[in-house]
Amino acid sequence: MQITVNRSDMTEAVSNIQRAVSSKTSVPALEGILLTAQEENLELCAYDLELGMTTVIPAKVKEPGKAVLSAKLFSDIVRKTPADTISIDVDEKNMATIESGVSRFSIIGIPAEEFPELPKVDDGKNISLAGSVLKSMIRQTVFAVAESDAKPIHQGSLFSMDDGLLDVVAVDGYRLAKRTESIDFKEKLSFVVPGKTLSEVLRLLKDSEELIGLYAGKRHIIFKIDNYTVISSLLEGEFLNYKATIPSGSKTTVVMRSREAIESVERVSLLINDRIKSPIRCVFSNSEIKLLCTTSMGRASDQISASMEGEELEIGFNNRYLLDALRNTECDEIKVGLSGPLSPMTISPKEGESFLFLVLPVRLKND
Amino acid sequence: MQITVNRSDMTEAVSNIQRAVSSKTSVPALEGILLTAQEENLELCAYDLELGMTTVIPAKVKEPGKAVLSAKLFSDIVRKTPADTISIDVDEKNMATIESGVSRFSIIGIPAEEFPELPKVDDGKNISLAGSVLKSMIRQTVFAVAESDAKPIHQGSLFSMDDGLLDVVAVDGYRLAKRTESIDFKEKLSFVVPGKTLSEVLRLLKDSEELIGLYAGKRHIIFKIDNYTVISSLLEGEFLNYKATIPSGSKTTVVMRSREAIESVERVSLLINDRIKSPIRCVFSNSEIKLLCTTSMGRASDQISASMEGEELEIGFNNRYLLDALRNTECDEIKVGLSGPLSPMTISPKEGESFLFLVLPVRLKND
Repeated sequence: MQITVNRSDMTEAVSNIQRAVSSKTSVPALEGILLTAQEENLELCAYDLELGMTTVIPAKVKEPGKAVLSAKLFSDIVRKTPADTISIDVDEKNMATIESGVSRFSIIGIPAEEFPELPKVDDGKNISLAGSVLKSMIRQTVFAVAESDAKPIHQGSLFSMDDGLLDVVAVDGYRLAKRTESIDFKEKLSFVVPGKTLSEVLRLLKDSEELIGLYAGKRHIIFKIDNYTVISSLLEGEFLNYKATIPSGSKTTVVMRSREAIESVERVSLLINDRIKSPIRCVFSNSEIKLLCTTSMGRASDQISASMEGEELEIGFNNRYLLDALRNTECDEIKVGLSGPLSPMTISPKEGESFLFLVLPVRLKND
Repeated sequence: MQITVNRSDMTEAVSNIQRAVSSKTSVPALEGILLTAQEENLELCAYDLELGMTTVIPAKVKEPGKAVLSAKLFSDIVRKTPADTISIDVDEKNMATIESGVSRFSIIGIPAEEFPELPKVDDGKNISLAGSVLKSMIRQTVFAVAESDAKPIHQGSLFSMDDGLLDVVAVDGYRLAKRTESIDFKEKLSFVVPGKTLSEVLRLLKDSEELIGLYAGKRHIIFKIDNYTVISSLLEGEFLNYKATIPSGSKTTVVMRSREAIESVERVSLLINDRIKSPIRCVFSNSEIKLLCTTSMGRASDQISASMEGEELEIGFNNRYLLDALRNTECDEIKVGLSGPLSPMTISPKEGESFLFLVLPVRLKND
């Protein structure tokens, strides 16, 4: 293989592609980036057996071929090259020579045959939606994806389509996040995408109206984002019947400013740390919310102004779950619904129903 | 104690003072900040038994008094307070109530009697120099302070004054950094300030012409920087006779651009990491410097253009020491002096002698 590429094309491609490289693996090829030179292009590919990413950049190809180079070392070299172009020459013994200006590196590559093949995806369905929409749908739900592998299916977000509506849902046993948008796809279809894949897709997505293509097969999904193709396994299993968990109404409805709520919860959370934990006691009454927290470090009280309808209520929450939900509302005013101290709280926008978060309460001890 | 202070005054003071708080200690008072309210002022003080820092901010004092509050928790609270003023009320049982707007915290303080007294410094000498000068003298030498405690005296920088000249010198057995300026102090005086103190002093110093006061006693030194007073133990022992180590001339003299040199060394250093080490081979000849590095990761070669006088030479260096020295030159063009493959390299500015760095070479194996 013998090619010359533009430095900034290569730097950008490598820094993105590198994210799909296995960090811990006993297979050396998985720590590498596969370079494939043909015609006027260089394709870069990384694959950790669950998530794969490819992209193509223009290249002057003197001699087509394939090579696998250590992702870490190769990306370090590319980032530091002194000249505008980089030439890469890999001989039949996999010795790669990388030259740019006065710099010259010789590093040993890995035989391309050892790089695993990306899965083939057949019989899939094409879905497309605007980049900005997909970005906000992923961002506003991925925080609630389960970290523990108690129920592996919940380590991903459910994409559920029905009659032109797409729900993206994540749930971890303590909270649920649902984001809804109408899309140009009328069939009934659902699949669960791993949280890790969604985090990587999120990084590639821009806030643009340009359409992003999804191609969902039985076991894999492909995202086409600009010049990048992300391919990922889907999670298998039975996802929570989320519609059944969403309360149909509430006994108390409160509207508040999300920024004020976030800052109040952050303040009373100062008495909580990794070792010292306590729920936050929230007292809803008289159009204000009192927040209280008592730990071995001391006591904190704070207050959020709100407009309130319905029953007064005292309820406890884990501060982390409360903050995650509030921070991901991404709107100025939110509507909170409550139905007693042991029922989940709902958080939704003041107007509309683009998102719905559920947070389970924590039973409070009486002081 | 009962006071009200301005939030931004308090935030700034606490974030600086906090840096002198002990991070690991079995004495709870040392994890705290001592607050002393009297007249119209609040004094804040932290002291880890080696380094102490105090400052004063204006306060409305309703009831004077003293209190010690956990530095970590107190600074977290101060930073997050919602209103422009903060009131602090500490009762005789050391229960502190901190109020700001809708926020209220009750935390338990530590008896002020448990806070150690700062050392008294008598019979000292007053020295003063511009903040920007002291800042550059510390910054351009502190990188060479010894990290190991093999020779405890070398864990600090020597301040050596003689006939109106101040040398600041740090040395760690592999390299030496010396910075020289003329000052308004004619006596002969020298002392060694711990590297940790200098790092903290560096953070407080601004690039201004305003005079900074030093008050050097036998065992302690005081720095007066704006509203802050830093007091530190001096190190005791015999500092290296650095003047004897500085070569009087060189067989090879090379002038180069420091940015070009840094980037070249950074590039060949890509083949070196925490586990895989190798010296960088520098070949000085024909008005250019070839850099070579070979490790189990591969081979790198690079080049620096230079203007050169004297003998050609091949010499090896530790890449870290080379980079530290080059990055701290802080000037566009530097002069490098060499006298054979086993003699230290000198680095100084192209013009003048405000700084002088020595870097010991590493013996190269012949391939």
